[in-house]
Order: sequence, then C-alpha cells, then structure tokens
Amino acid sequence: MTGQPAPSGIKLGIDIGATTVKIGAVGEGTAILARAVAPTLQDFAAAADLIAKTVRDTFREAGLGLSSLPFAGVGIPSAVHPVTGRVVEANNAGWRDAPLKEALEKRLGLPVLVANDADCALAAEASAGAARGVPDVLMLTLGTGVGGALLLGGRLYRGADGMGMELGHMPLIAGGRPCTCGADGCLEAYCSATGLVALTRDAMARHPDSLMHAWSRRRGGRVSGRTAFECLKKGDGAARAVVDRYCELLAQGIGGLVNAFRPRRVLVGGGVSHAGEPLFTRLNALLPRFVISFGVIGASEVMPAQMGNDAGIIGAATLDRVRGG
Amino acid sequence: MTGQPAPSGIKLGIDIGATTVKIGAVGEGTAILARAVAPTLQDFAAAADLIAKTVRDTFREAGLGLSSLPFAGVGIPSAVHPVTGRVVEANNAGWRDAPLKEALEKRLGLPVLVANDADCALAAEASAGAARGVPDVLMLTLGTGVGGALLLGGRLYRGADGMGMELGHMPLIAGGRPCTCGADGCLEAYCSATGLVALTRDAMARHPDSLMHAWSRRRGGRVSGRTAFECLKKGDGAARAVVDRYCELLAQGIGGLVNAFRPRRVLVGGGVSHAGEPLFTRLNALLPRFVISFGVIGASEVMPAQMGNDAGIIGAATLDRVRGG
Repeated sequence: MTGQPAPSGIKLGIDIGATTVKIGAVGEGTAILARAVAPTLQDFAAAADLIAKTVRDTFREAGLGLSSLPFAGVGIPSAVHPVTGRVVEANNAGWRDAPLKEALEKRLGLPVLVANDADCALAAEASAGAARGVPDVLMLTLGTGVGGALLLGGRLYRGADGMGMELGHMPLIAGGRPCTCGADGCLEAYCSATGLVALTRDAMARHPDSLMHAWSRRRGGRVSGRTAFECLKKGDGAARAVVDRYCELLAQGIGGLVNAFRPRRVLVGGGVSHAGEPLFTRLNALLPRFVISFGVIGASEVMPAQMGNDAGIIGAATLDRVRGG
Repeated sequence: MTGQPAPSGIKLGIDIGATTVKIGAVGEGTAILARAVAPTLQDFAAAADLIAKTVRDTFREAGLGLSSLPFAGVGIPSAVHPVTGRVVEANNAGWRDAPLKEALEKRLGLPVLVANDADCALAAEASAGAARGVPDVLMLTLGTGVGGALLLGGRLYRGADGMGMELGHMPLIAGGRPCTCGADGCLEAYCSATGLVALTRDAMARHPDSLMHAWSRRRGGRVSGRTAFECLKKGDGAARAVVDRYCELLAQGIGGLVNAFRPRRVLVGGGVSHAGEPLFTRLNALLPRFVISFGVIGASEVMPAQMGNDAGIIGAATLDRVRGG
C-alpha cells in the first residue's frame, strides 16, 4: 500500500493549534480522505519531527503517496514571514521566529506554504463555504482570541509587508480590558469567546438571580460563550443584556472594519458563531449605525462561516487558490 | 493671452473644502502657477457653475489654456463613487449623492477625476512629499475631522467597492464621546483637532490654575489644538497630561491600523501635525506597545506630512499617478 503516488487532486493540510495539530489528506470537493491528530510540542524541532512522522504515517496507512503532492499547506495562529515562512510568534506553542517552512520542507520533501490560521479559515470558506464566488470578504474568527482575514479580489490580503493582518488587536475600547497582547481594550479583549465569558461573569456577579447561575451550576460551574445565548432563549433578562452588549461591541468593531475595507460580505467564524440567529440578526440590525454613509452606499451582510471544524485543514490544503503575490 | 494651449505638464487641481474651494494650475515640480479661491455654495448646480467659471477665469488671466489639459483633479471630504464620480455625502457643503464628475466634465470640457480629500493629501505626499518613493504608506489627516488614506504598492487603496476608506470612523473607545457620524467613540471623536480641543477643555475645567487659562484669555477665550502643546513648552502639568493622553489615544489608533495594514510609514497631516516634535516623539515611543509582535517584526515610523496648505490642490492635480484600478 505504500509509495503509491497520490491520486490527482489530493492535497495535504496541517492545522497547528495551541494544543493539537490536525492533519488531513483533502480530496476533490474538500472531502477529508484521511486524518490524524498529534499534540503540539513546545520544542520546535521535536514538533516538526512529530508533524512530519504523523503525516507520513497517515498517508501510508491510507494508501496514499506523498511525493506527488504539489505542496503541503500549514496554518498557525501567528504572523508568518511572507518569504521565509518563519513563524513570528506562536504564543501558545511557545515558538518565536521559528523556521516552520524550512523545517517541514526538509522533513517532508515537499514545498510548504505557511499561513496564519485566520487566513486558512477564510481560504476554506473561499474554496467551499460562505466566501465561494465572492471576491471581497472580511472574516473574523471569534474563539479564544480574535483572528481576522480579508479576501480582496479573490486573494488573501496580507499587509504591505506580507506579514498578514491582526484585526483582533485593533482598539475597541482603548484603555479598557487588558488584552493578551499587552495593550488594553483591543477588539479581542471584548469580542473573543474569552471576552464574552468575561462579560457574562460580570453580569452574573451583578445579577445573583439570573438563570445563568443555574445553567452554570448544571455544568460544574463552567461559564462559556454559550451561557448568555442559551439563557437568553429562556427569557433571562441579564443574559439578554449580555448578548445585547456583546453584539453592540462586535457590531461597532465590524462597522469600523467595513469603513476601512468595504467588503461585500463579513463572515464570523469560531466558537461564538455557533450562537446562530440571535447573534447574526442583532449584528445585521446594528451594523448600519456604525457604517459611514450607510443610507447612500449600504453595508456588508454579516453571515456565519460554514466550514466547521475541518476549516483549518481544508483552508491550509487550498491556500494555493487564494495566495496573493 | 486667452485660448493658448497649456504648456506641457500643466495640471488642474480643485480642492473643495467645507467653506471654500481652492483652485490651482500646477506646473512641473508641483509649483502653483496660478490660483484662486471661491466660496463652497450649498446649491450644487450653482456651486458647479461657480467652480467652472473660477477655473476658466484663473486660467485665462494666467495666460493658460484649458483645452489641452489631460484631466481636472478634484478632492472633496466625502466618499466618492468609483465609476460615476458621484459625491456620497459632503456634509459641510450639504451635498448628498451629487454628480460632481458629470457636472464638472460638462462645464469644463475635460475628463474629471474625483477623490476623497484624504486620498488627495496622500497623493500630494506621494508626488513631492513624505511618501515619495515609499510604496506602502498610511496617512491620517487630523483636522476638524480625521481623514485616512492608504498607498499600497504605490496605488491608493479605495476599498473593495472603490468607495474609499473612512479610517476616522473606526472605533477607539466604543460607546464613548459622540462622533459626528452618529456612532460613539470613533477615532475622529478623540483624535481630530476637535477631539483634542475637547480633551483640553476637560483638563482646563479640572485645573483652574493651569497656564492654559491665561493662554486662552490672551486669545479672546479661544481654545485650539495648539493650546495644550504650547503650554506644555512652558512646563504646565495639566497641558502635559492632555498631550500625553492625546498621544496615547492616537498611538493606539495608529497601532491598530498598523496591525491591519502593516505600512512602512505612517504620515500625520492636518492642523494637529503642526505640533511637531512633542507629538511625533511621543507617537514613535508609544507605538511599539500597540503593534503586535513589534519585537520580531518592527513597527512603522510615524512622520509629519510635508506638503502644507497646497496639498489638496497638488494632490488633486496628481491623482492620475496614484489612482488604482
């Protein structure tokens, strides 16, 4: 079964997260033909070794050859040097200025494209999701942090120096809640799932009679990005206030980005986006307030991302389609 | 003297401001060969008539012909439709969805390029000022409002739909000081000259012994964007606190834009930029705090714009050099 060339159209996507690396062989129509998961090791050389070994094992077990692949695509939560493919700062893995492209090219014997994870998420949407056929799309991923990516004319915008965009670290309430980046009041500090949890905890402390306390107790005391949205459905007033406040902040953040980039469509992905209708209805209703000259030129539509958990693998594997110069 | 063709290289720039229209014939090396000023009329057709008449009179009196000009360039504080050249909302003039390109083409018999005034200011810097030879430059103009423009690869970035950027209306302190746009807490509400005056007045109210009171009394009670910077030079503590606060807010705003666009250089123009050294030293010292991964990838340099009062005319006249597709 080993050593066969990969069938035409097979691609390799590697999604390096804070704690795990997801690996997938992606076929036509973005189907995942084989997959594996490995821990994200802090030691960079050991991590590269483990990723390469897992890729080889996965392809061998699936009866797929590696050598004929056009490239390996890799996504990682960091800025990435546009030429060297060095990872600037992957804080959770603890890698800094790490030669990821070089290390994997050497170990896999393939050309490697490395990109920011938000860029990969948007690449996946462009290949098979909510950005398909739309040339100008802004995407925010709302998870532990906030990632941002922009498709302009069908190509990923990566900044004047190619280092990519860090939309999570634009100010939202300057001087406000401390952000992981060291500044205070970034979009990420309020609009990430972490920021939503902080808003939720604040409201719970102020409202001891809120249903959110019982919801949390039933889950071992856990408060998540779902807490307020779930309790809103049951009519809890404090939960509604959290959702309204969160959506207003996020709408103002999105509105500012629309004023800067004027995309046709804004996609929201990441864990928070699973809140669904209550989130998107509010965002679209609020957006006109924050978009300049909305009455004359209109605003973008805010929609949920569609690609789900495999977006990182699929986006990495299809980076070649949206990679700008 | 009339009817002669314009000497080779002569261009026409029209800078439509809130109260006056500045018109100039721009020669080689961006010298202004002839100039005129007219009031900005609220009635759009009358305004177009007066602008065209003033252009013709000015060129005739200077012995220059209009007919051989390649185009007339026009700058205006509004978004501008990329194809029709319609002015979306020029609030101060009271024009809304006004067919400026069509009206002036008909009256002047020349092709007309219309652009946002901040785009023109950056075009002027690219032609003969602080953006010359630098392909990727972000510019903020800090006057009554905040204008923003971006040069990417030597071309003006105008947003996915060509409507241009409105960087003054990105959030800085969401929910904070009311902005002219209807939202609260925009960059413009804090970092325009108007925002600086508001910060200054707040500090004066809290510090009745500040030198800023005497400074203002000597100027008939006027408080301006210069008040705090002038009194800082005399060692006034309240003035220093205003300048420090203003610079911190502006640095965070600029830092967010650097995180999004990663320009090599950031230019600051408009009235506030005349504060000079105390402003730019602070901005460059503060910026690393607000730029992601500064330690690895560095930040942009913040510099004053160089083109002065004629930037609007010169930029409009040289729009063809930086006009993107």
